[in-house]
Order: sequence, then C-alpha cells, then structure tokens
Amino acid sequence: MLTQGVVAELRRALDPADVLLDRADLISYSIDGTWLEGRPDCVVMPRSAEQVAAVLRIANRERIPIVPRGGSTNLSGGTIPLGGGIVLNLAQLNRILEIDTGNLLAVVEPGVLTHDLDRAVRKHNLYYPPDPSSLKQSTIGGNVAENAGGLRCLKYGVTSKYVLGLQYVTATGQIGRAGGRVIKNVTGYQLDQLLVGSEGTLAVITEITLRLIPRPRHKRTATAIFPTLEGASGSVAEITREGIIPSALELMDQSSIRIVENVVRLGLPTDAEAILLVEVDGNHEGAMEDEMDRVAAILERNGASVQRAHDEAEGERLWAARRAVSPATARLKPNKLGEDVSVPRSAVPAMIRRCREIAAKYDLLMPVWGHAGDGNVHPNLLFDRRNPEEVERVQFAAAEIFEAAVSLGGTLSGEHGIGVLKREFLGLAVDPTTVGVMKTLKRALDPNNILNPGKIFPEGGDGNRRVPVHLALTGPGSGETVNTTSAPIR
Amino acid sequence: MLTQGVVAELRRALDPADVLLDRADLISYSIDGTWLEGRPDCVVMPRSAEQVAAVLRIANRERIPIVPRGGSTNLSGGTIPLGGGIVLNLAQLNRILEIDTGNLLAVVEPGVLTHDLDRAVRKHNLYYPPDPSSLKQSTIGGNVAENAGGLRCLKYGVTSKYVLGLQYVTATGQIGRAGGRVIKNVTGYQLDQLLVGSEGTLAVITEITLRLIPRPRHKRTATAIFPTLEGASGSVAEITREGIIPSALELMDQSSIRIVENVVRLGLPTDAEAILLVEVDGNHEGAMEDEMDRVAAILERNGASVQRAHDEAEGERLWAARRAVSPATARLKPNKLGEDVSVPRSAVPAMIRRCREIAAKYDLLMPVWGHAGDGNVHPNLLFDRRNPEEVERVQFAAAEIFEAAVSLGGTLSGEHGIGVLKREFLGLAVDPTTVGVMKTLKRALDPNNILNPGKIFPEGGDGNRRVPVHLALTGPGSGETVNTTSAPIR
Repeated sequence: MLTQGVVAELRRALDPADVLLDRADLISYSIDGTWLEGRPDCVVMPRSAEQVAAVLRIANRERIPIVPRGGSTNLSGGTIPLGGGIVLNLAQLNRILEIDTGNLLAVVEPGVLTHDLDRAVRKHNLYYPPDPSSLKQSTIGGNVAENAGGLRCLKYGVTSKYVLGLQYVTATGQIGRAGGRVIKNVTGYQLDQLLVGSEGTLAVITEITLRLIPRPRHKRTATAIFPTLEGASGSVAEITREGIIPSALELMDQSSIRIVENVVRLGLPTDAEAILLVEVDGNHEGAMEDEMDRVAAILERNGASVQRAHDEAEGERLWAARRAVSPATARLKPNKLGEDVSVPRSAVPAMIRRCREIAAKYDLLMPVWGHAGDGNVHPNLLFDRRNPEEVERVQFAAAEIFEAAVSLGGTLSGEHGIGVLKREFLGLAVDPTTVGVMKTLKRALDPNNILNPGKIFPEGGDGNRRVPVHLALTGPGSGETVNTTSAPIR
Repeated sequence: MLTQGVVAELRRALDPADVLLDRADLISYSIDGTWLEGRPDCVVMPRSAEQVAAVLRIANRERIPIVPRGGSTNLSGGTIPLGGGIVLNLAQLNRILEIDTGNLLAVVEPGVLTHDLDRAVRKHNLYYPPDPSSLKQSTIGGNVAENAGGLRCLKYGVTSKYVLGLQYVTATGQIGRAGGRVIKNVTGYQLDQLLVGSEGTLAVITEITLRLIPRPRHKRTATAIFPTLEGASGSVAEITREGIIPSALELMDQSSIRIVENVVRLGLPTDAEAILLVEVDGNHEGAMEDEMDRVAAILERNGASVQRAHDEAEGERLWAARRAVSPATARLKPNKLGEDVSVPRSAVPAMIRRCREIAAKYDLLMPVWGHAGDGNVHPNLLFDRRNPEEVERVQFAAAEIFEAAVSLGGTLSGEHGIGVLKREFLGLAVDPTTVGVMKTLKRALDPNNILNPGKIFPEGGDGNRRVPVHLALTGPGSGETVNTTSAPIR
C-alpha cells in the first residue's frame, strides 16, 4: 500500500522532487500509444540504478505494482498502470555513457531516445539499425523491453540481436549485470536475452550495452506500383530466391494507397493493388547499383511500374507515401487498433488476402501495410469508440486476424508486444506447457508479482479466447481496471 | 535410483535395444572432448520427443541425473556424467525435417551434424554460417546447447542469432515449443534464447528451427605475415575503422606459427610474430575485389607481407596453416587445455601479451590463436597429465588467463561453455546477483536438479577461485566424481 509513510520513504530514497503525486502528473502518466488508461498512485523518476533498486525494495516489501516506463509509445497497453501503483519513469536515466568505436559498441541508459543514439553514432560512421517508427519518441529501454523491430529487420534483425549486455535491477532490488561487452559469451545463461522482450515483467533495465555496425555508405531506393497483389508477392519471393536481402521491403495494400492519396495527394494510382518500396544498402556503390538493377528487373517482370530514386532527396520522396500512411488513417476515424501479426514471409500474401476478407465480413475500414520482407504485417482496424456496434465488429475482426496469423504459421505480435491488448490471446499462439514455463520464470524472478502486473499473461481464462474482450477492458473513466494489483501469478 | 524396475520401465518406454547397460557402452559414453571421465549408469537413445519426455518423467520421479549428449566434442566437460545417471544420447534424432527456401529456414532434429546441415542447404544456395571447428563431428543440438561460435561470428554472429524456435522437453517431461518460424516474435518471453547456451541444464532440446541466409557468391582470402604483433593488431583496428567486416579474421601468434612449421612444414617464417588470415565475402565480385584491395593496403601499411589467393584452391592453401595448428599441438604434448576467453576486440593484443607473460612465468608451451575479429582468443596450454608439477603450473596459468580476460572487460568462455572445467571460476566473470538469478532460473525449471547436474555453477565455493582445482577434479579412474548427483542447487 502506498501510505504516507511509504511516500516519505520514497522521497528520502530519491530527490524529493522526483516523486510525483499531483493529480495532473498522475493523469499524464496514465496513458500510452493506445487508448487505454489507468491511473497510477505515484510516479517516481530515479536518476541511478541505486535509486531504482531502492524503489524496488520498498515496492516489493509493500507489494506495490511497479510499471517501468520509457517513451510510452507502445501499442499494446504495456505501460498502462492498470492496477495503480508506482510508475517508474526512466526518462532521467538518459545518458549515452560511451561510444566505443574500436569495439563497435555503445553503452547507454534506458531513457535515451533511439533516434538520438543513432544520430550520435552516425558521427562515427556507425549504425544502430533497429528503427521502430516511433524512434524519435521511443527510448532504447522501451525498445529493449519490447524487443522492438522496425523496417530493417529482414537484413539487420530486431533489437535483441544488438543487445550485448544489460545492467538490471531485480524485483527484490538487487543490481546485476547480464551479458557483457563481447560478441561471443557463453559464460552462464543468456539472461540478457531473457530480459529483452519481457515487457518490464521480470526486471528493470538500467543500462544497455549495444552492438553497432559500420554505417553502410550507399543505398538505392525504388518504388514499384503493382496492378495486382500477386505481382508484389511474387516479386518478394523472387528477390529472396535471387539471394538479395534488401535493407527495406515495405508493402502497402490498395486500401492504404487510397487513404494516403485521399489525404496527402502524392499522385498515387488508386487502382493499384499494392505498392512495394525497396531499399538496398552496402559499402560498394557499383554493387548497390547492380543489386538495384536486378531488383528492378524482378519488379518489372512481375508487372510493376518501377520508379528509381537517383539521389537521396528522391529516395526520401519515395519514402513519403509509406511514412504518410499511418498519420493519414487518423483523418478517417478517431480510433485505430494497429495489429502487428508476424508470419513466415511466404505467407504474407495469404495473410493480406485473409485481412481483406475479414475487413469485408465485418464491414471495416482496414488498411494493411507492413514489412513484406520480414513477414510482419500491420492490419489497421479503424473505428470510432463511441460506436459500440463498430467496436464489437473490431473485436471479432481482431480475433480472426490472430487466428489467421497463427494458422499460417505465424504469431500474435512481431514488434508491439502482448501487453494488455493481446494477453487474452496468448494461448492461441503459445502452447500450455510454454505458457506454464513462462509463468514459472515470472514467479521465480518476481515472487510478489510487483513488476508490471497484468501484462502478457491471460487474466480472463485460458488465453484461448475466440471472442475478445480487450477493447472493453478499460477506457477513459471506465474504471474497469480488472484484477491487476500485485496478485500472485497463477 | 536406477533400479532393475526403472530399467524395465525405460525399456518399455523406448525400443529395448535403445537402452544400453553393457560395460563397454557405458565406458564409451563416459568421455567428451576433454580428458575428463565419468561413468553413466545407463545410456538411452530416444527416437522421438515423446520418448525423451517419457525418460524425463521417469528420471524426475526417481531423481536420476540426465546428461543430454550430442557429438560430445565439447571442450568444457559439459557432457561428462560426473555423478552417474542416464546419458540421453540424441544421435538418433538426426533428421533434417524441412528446408524452407521461401522463408530461409530449416527445421532439424538435434542430432544432425552441423556440417551435414550446411551441406544440405548449400544445394539451395543457402548458408548456415556458425561453424565451430568441430562441425563435422558436433551436432546442431550440441551447438545450440553451448551457443557455439566458430570463425565467422564477427560478420555472421553466433548460433543463438540463427535460432528462431525450439521444441523442448521440460525436466518434468512436458513437451513445449518456444519461439517459432518468424523473424519478429514478441509473443511472450524469449524462452528459446534462454535455452540456447544453457548446456543441457534447463530442458532437453528435441527440434530446432534455424534461420538461413543466402549463400555469398564470392569470397577473397589473404594471409598477412607480420614481423610484430603490433602490426597485426593495428591492422585489425584499422580494418574495423574502415567499416570493413571480414567474414574471417584469424590470428596465430609466434608460438603457433612455430608449432605448425615444425610439424607440417608449410614454409612459414618462424621469426614472424603473427599471421593474420583475412577472408571477405559477398555477392558482388567487384565489391569483394575492391574490399580485399583495401584490406591488403591496410595490412601492408602495417608492415605485413601479404599473400592473396587468386582462386578457391589457393584460398584453401592459405587456410591450411590455420587449420593445422590445433592438430599440430598434439605432437608436442599429450594433453591440452584449450581455453576460449572472449574479450572486446581492441583488447586482443593486450590479451595475447598477457598470455605470453603467463606462459613465461609458468614455463609452459602455450600457443595462442583465435578469432581476432570477434575477440575470442584461444590460449592452448600444452602439458602432460603424468607430470603433476606441470599440471599444477597449468592450473595456475589458466586461473591467471581468466583473471586477465575479465580485467580486460572480457569473460571466461566465448564458445566452449562453462561445463565442469570453468565452473569454479563463474564468480570471476558474473556478479553474485546474476549467479543467484541464474540459479533461481535453474531451480524453477528443474526443481529436482536432474538436468546435467554439476555443470555451470560452482560446487566448491563462491566461484571466485584464485587457485583452480579443475584439473584435479576428475580423471581416468580417479573416482573423484565430487557431489553432482541430483542434489538441490544451493
């Protein structure tokens, strides 16, 4: 319980100004990138791992939920303090501690913005590839906690592939270090990798050692407009077969094209079924030119009209359509459920076809875009929360999207995390033994269930829902905050 | 206890011929790639995950240690049944179940030889890069359990970077699936990554889904002979600064050069202080040629005499010296302690200098070679186990090597694992909180401590040994099998 005595203790452990209790503060920390809401009882802003440890020792003793928070751009409700408790805002731990150009690594605190890290390493001709679309607002700590992806994962891999080591604080307030500064490390378990993607439920990350790579010197960009979706998917398969791994291979379906064109007027052909945006990068200009020649030939063979950028500015213009799609959706409907199912790459066309059928069945506006190269597909369900009948259709549609992804050999989430929005569906994608093992790990590392309780694991049943409840769970002022206070994980 | 009743139960659960009890069989399963020895009470050779699960249920009930085993090429005593029990030989689970060229992945059973997998995917112009030197004898299951590395990790990463998903059996005999078939997956914890490198202590792996990449079409190889070690290390730093990531960057020190030349007579200059072997690969021949031009210029600027291969056969000849070094050591002394400390790349020259000092201090023959690009250094302590005074010097030298690696920002093991040989040193490289967390994970997933007991965690004290005991621990017929029967992890 957050008694006056506990607040006083927190104020002694931290700078008193770093303990926030004002109503305005609590409200501003009650939201994330979704429409969910949950009011914390207190917000703390530690300035060191030791302060984080002190907060956790108090919270663990008092059984107070702790919700670690970075930029809170997440799209799964992962940083919503559903059951109240203490929001642990890591924004003040925001120093880039070291950029080691000889060993190609950086040591950073979790509150560093991803974009700021890449900007800092760029000066040394180095590159930190993971680039979630939120990179100007989201933090490295959040990226690590969600194992964030982005546009360049086919070639460069997700966040976990760049984590060499972590400093972390346990639920009981002990500080440890997992992994290290080396590329090869088999000294004990890969604890760093267990913490990556654990959504703040196993430990609090207070420092991150990240692998960097040399920044590619050259890139080539092209856009391909396809009369049919089959042409686009055929091209992706053929590019793969040719042994080409583009640094980006982005797809927009017809609905996305029309939404962008309606709002931004870039001159896109609204009768096209798909647009592919392809980028290749590397250190050798001739090799990049040759590779893009091969890609363009494949795209044209598959019926596309291809536009190649001749310089960086033109490349940026080609990216404009892809970048415009997500903001453009906001003009059409007030709310958006942005799913991020992940399927084997060859299943992307089937997944998009299923999305079309689902959109038609439930009469929903549902543009689909995504990372065609890595199989991460974003069906975006647009709706108005004030229309309960539409909300219900969205719920059924989302459930069918999850089922389709799993039946195609995929999974619920490629980069957004499970959080609250997908927790009741965990059992669709993960077998009961493995859910059991994951719960065992959670119980072992956080016996009092204080770390981000109510996230990842189903609370409503066996995690095998056919009819979702997630949209109804919470909302502004709904007060429906279900059972998430520090109750033991079953 | 392995009673007659339990043996009968095992015979019912498996094909009776797959339960081995003959003394000759037990002896042949009592060794690995080290000189350690430990006699199992029984060997079982399951043919399915269900059979593995049946064996584990029996073993867990009876508290019988289970030692999972692949090719048993490991160099840390990881598959030695120190406390008796059942060796779980996974050699019969050796099918390549699927090569999915569209999604660039393979599904294999753990008993598949690593070399056989790469040979199979090569037919499709695909590539499985991790290549431990044992790849013709070691299995994918063993590679995953040890998170094996090899020569190509700087550019391509270690085994864990290729694991997309696993089927596993828990200590209590339940079958589950972690990860999946997708590149981006944040649906629950990265349980697959926790199991990778866990040395058979957390679960038994029964199927592995591996990411593949397009096979590079071109490679260029060169050897550089340096009068001074500084020239070699300067070259490595400069290659990195230039943004070049070679597919191999191997170093041999003077002692290694002399040993090879004494035994194989390749015409190497025995007054050279170091040889670097550099390989670059990629899809564009001109780009590879340009890249090797830049590498050669760097090598020459740093004082090397450079020899470039003009075709694949010549490339193979350049590799001959590097390949000869490990076998050549066997001609000099009957025993070898092959360490595999891992340090940040920039610390490789300092690590090699420390090794020289340590070899001089203890008057030992200690060739050093290693993966200069990824920081994984192999000091090889040559000795004769029949000479107890020499054995003692080796023990002290090994301890100083570990201390040097850790003080340089590195760790105990880059690719061999901790197993038995390094367990008493775990605390040198891993802080007490993290050792505690790792033990907590072990207890949570294997409450009866049946899975490969006695491995990884210190048994002799706080894991902070200055004077090692590992060479004295066991040996042929020594009977010193310390406390490793299924006792609870403290």
